[in-house]
Amino acid sequence: MAPVKVFGLALTNAARVMVCLEEVGAEYEVVNMDLQAMEHKSPEHLARNPFGQIPAFQDGDVVLFESRAICKYVLRKYKSAEADLLREGDLKDAAMVDVWTEVEAHTYHPAISPIVYECLLKPTMLGIPTNDKVVEESLEKLKKVLDVYEARLANHKYLAGDFVSFADINHFPYTFPFMATPHASLFDSYPNVKAWWERLMARPSMNKLGADMAAAIKAA
Amino acid sequence: MAPVKVFGLALTNAARVMVCLEEVGAEYEVVNMDLQAMEHKSPEHLARNPFGQIPAFQDGDVVLFESRAICKYVLRKYKSAEADLLREGDLKDAAMVDVWTEVEAHTYHPAISPIVYECLLKPTMLGIPTNDKVVEESLEKLKKVLDVYEARLANHKYLAGDFVSFADINHFPYTFPFMATPHASLFDSYPNVKAWWERLMARPSMNKLGADMAAAIKAA
Repeated sequence: MAPVKVFGLALTNAARVMVCLEEVGAEYEVVNMDLQAMEHKSPEHLARNPFGQIPAFQDGDVVLFESRAICKYVLRKYKSAEADLLREGDLKDAAMVDVWTEVEAHTYHPAISPIVYECLLKPTMLGIPTNDKVVEESLEKLKKVLDVYEARLANHKYLAGDFVSFADINHFPYTFPFMATPHASLFDSYPNVKAWWERLMARPSMNKLGADMAAAIKAA
Repeated sequence: MAPVKVFGLALTNAARVMVCLEEVGAEYEVVNMDLQAMEHKSPEHLARNPFGQIPAFQDGDVVLFESRAICKYVLRKYKSAEADLLREGDLKDAAMVDVWTEVEAHTYHPAISPIVYECLLKPTMLGIPTNDKVVEESLEKLKKVLDVYEARLANHKYLAGDFVSFADINHFPYTFPFMATPHASLFDSYPNVKAWWERLMARPSMNKLGADMAAAIKAA
């Protein structure tokens, strides 16, 4: 059987999908998209994702987009006793995974992603100067989020409880590059968050994707 | 057994939870939160949701926040042959439900919600004038989203496929009040979207919550 395909780069949201594929040990092929050649707006890609964004995903006749939806598909399809990151067999565990997955999407991501864009992607990949006002406002938002995370992680080893889940690894795509910005030391003020992040980065999946992402940023 | 509790008003994101509870026929109690008295920032509510937002939800010792996570809990717990709105038993169907649920969260919602705030909640409930520039920019974004929806709904009765799902009813909390703004006629240019919306509004759950939401806006 042909391996599943991820359309995109080992950067931002596509990296979320790749971390999940690594977690479950699935074979996959990355189809690099040339964003400067506008390949993501080609008719071929619009058939995969009508909004013309990356990542997209293909598994035979199943064609998906939206990174968090793709991740759930991957985590369900390749679920095992060792890799059950959604815990859908347990009503309460699954709910806690969902709650903190939604927190990442609606609260953490909007605070951290502008800092990554402004401090890393804009100057490095796009040659555009950083907007300091956006960075400052986003740092203020991020501190409020990290206050909540710090309290949560004082009582639980991971966000959804004392088990690692999609809610945690879902934080990889922007937290990893944030650690390459001049603001990385912010996490030093949040020891529980910092220990959580180090625990996650010790996972082979995140370690591997971290190396791939660093290479993708360097090559850009 | 005590009915489950929803903390919030039959408005915006809390209405998403209530529609799901109606869909599955669950008994529930709405605990109204007095937002002007800052009840959502009280220690009691912060114990339910550390970010101090509504809705929150309680089912015995299960306490949840984030409306879409609460909805999934409700739809799993009360799932039946007649009401299976997540379709988690089918890998492909579940993935399509997730894809279009994520589209609502990341693409549709950011386009439509500012229009509802600016044209309805601000002048009616908060006594603040509408920012026309925000409305115009959001309308342009919404048109691009509706172009994609129109094409999707030309080939499928509902967003995830030919079955109604959470991906559809998830659109209720902002689409219903949008229809009370001066821009409601925008949907006339999208006949497939309009027919989809009318099909959804004919559902008893959405019909009931529509009446509750209209009353909540009027009372505010």
